[in-house]
Amino acid sequence: MCQLLGMNCNVPTDIVFSFTGFAMRGGHTDTHHDGWGIAFFEGAGVRHFVDHQAAIASPIAELIKRYPIKSTNVIAHIRKATQGQVALENCHPFVRELWGQYWVFAHNGDLKEFNPLLNGAFRPVGTTDSERAFCYILQQLRARFGEQRPPLDQLRSVLSALVHEIATHGTFNMLLSSGGELFAHCSTNLFWLVRQHPFDTAKLSDEDVSVDFSQVTTPNDRVAIIVTQPLTTNEQWTAFQPGELKLFIDGCATP
Amino acid sequence: MCQLLGMNCNVPTDIVFSFTGFAMRGGHTDTHHDGWGIAFFEGAGVRHFVDHQAAIASPIAELIKRYPIKSTNVIAHIRKATQGQVALENCHPFVRELWGQYWVFAHNGDLKEFNPLLNGAFRPVGTTDSERAFCYILQQLRARFGEQRPPLDQLRSVLSALVHEIATHGTFNMLLSSGGELFAHCSTNLFWLVRQHPFDTAKLSDEDVSVDFSQVTTPNDRVAIIVTQPLTTNEQWTAFQPGELKLFIDGCATP
Repeated sequence: MCQLLGMNCNVPTDIVFSFTGFAMRGGHTDTHHDGWGIAFFEGAGVRHFVDHQAAIASPIAELIKRYPIKSTNVIAHIRKATQGQVALENCHPFVRELWGQYWVFAHNGDLKEFNPLLNGAFRPVGTTDSERAFCYILQQLRARFGEQRPPLDQLRSVLSALVHEIATHGTFNMLLSSGGELFAHCSTNLFWLVRQHPFDTAKLSDEDVSVDFSQVTTPNDRVAIIVTQPLTTNEQWTAFQPGELKLFIDGCATP
Repeated sequence: MCQLLGMNCNVPTDIVFSFTGFAMRGGHTDTHHDGWGIAFFEGAGVRHFVDHQAAIASPIAELIKRYPIKSTNVIAHIRKATQGQVALENCHPFVRELWGQYWVFAHNGDLKEFNPLLNGAFRPVGTTDSERAFCYILQQLRARFGEQRPPLDQLRSVLSALVHEIATHGTFNMLLSSGGELFAHCSTNLFWLVRQHPFDTAKLSDEDVSVDFSQVTTPNDRVAIIVTQPLTTNEQWTAFQPGELKLFIDGCATP
């Protein structure tokens, strides 16, 4: 299995603190050492870093920890291979273009006998069940809505049916974003919180690091963090319900 | 205008030496400071780095210069904006998936009144003429060959017609790769060489750096470098002919 980390904010924010704890699980405090990756939206563009090395041994992960890239939507993943060999093309997150926007996707779980008919519009490059699921989702969204991106409520409704269909094949915790929003679906393990005014100090559970967010934020900042297992010891994390699809916009979970 | 750098080899090779000289043109020895990018194929996967900062000021470019990522096909680009604002989504190279393979593309030049009909299969995210041309090429390749990648000679023949059609709109120096080969088309400025046994010392023209390739290679290694302007002062670079499309495989220019 793997672990997921997502961030959705109302102002561009760096993910250095959360990623530092998360990356420790990539071979140090946990055994997810079969690659890792992270994607940052920056306007319509995406910075996409993947590495088949363990996150704790990766010079690129080191850079991410030291270089505060600011983004309103981030998806990260550390991998423990279940399907697909350890190779760069099997590292999450995956990126594709649909409706003139980049879409970023990462998955935690294991899908059994999931071999949907892919018509060629989106085809996996690697050999994971995860990338197959991502290609299937995008194919079905295009088939349903054609060449025009629909309003968000319609998108959410169709996506909800799609992820529930896929989840009948196994565990399907996933994060998906096209830059303006972040969708999170839970089959088994996913937690979230929102950091907002009044900000406090947070302590990582995987490393002896704290940060006083009141020193690095403005009162209007709002940052939602979504993660497989809580990252901090002194904050209130909310567990997703199994089968729940949440939509985060501007650092808020929409009802 | 921009500058292009490509590498095609028969064994995974790092591009640290050539990129070091090339990156100096991103704001130091030349004025291409409106972003840069580089993509490395690694098996079927791609490491894709883009940055809207000047290459000489970019922490990610610093990492690339220090971290020897080995690849058989690399495409890099430094940008001086002509069309499209300075933004991450307008940085080359661009990446898309076709036939279950990633395709990487970068362009130097300026296309006038180039507004092909894009049917939605591949749509630009940014606002450059370059990304429009890339989407058009992939759309036409899929339209021509359907869901099956054709043999390389057929691909080359159709691609040749496509790039000549696009080049009627302006300057279209470009590099294109799906990981196993590298296509290079010249409208105006493009040079190439092959480094092979017996290897010698090469001296960069943009920085006081030399490398004795005989110390870091085996007699079987073969590395083709393609670049907008020669990178070294003591090697024999061959100019492309205007209108020439060259195909590089395993470090060789095919006839």
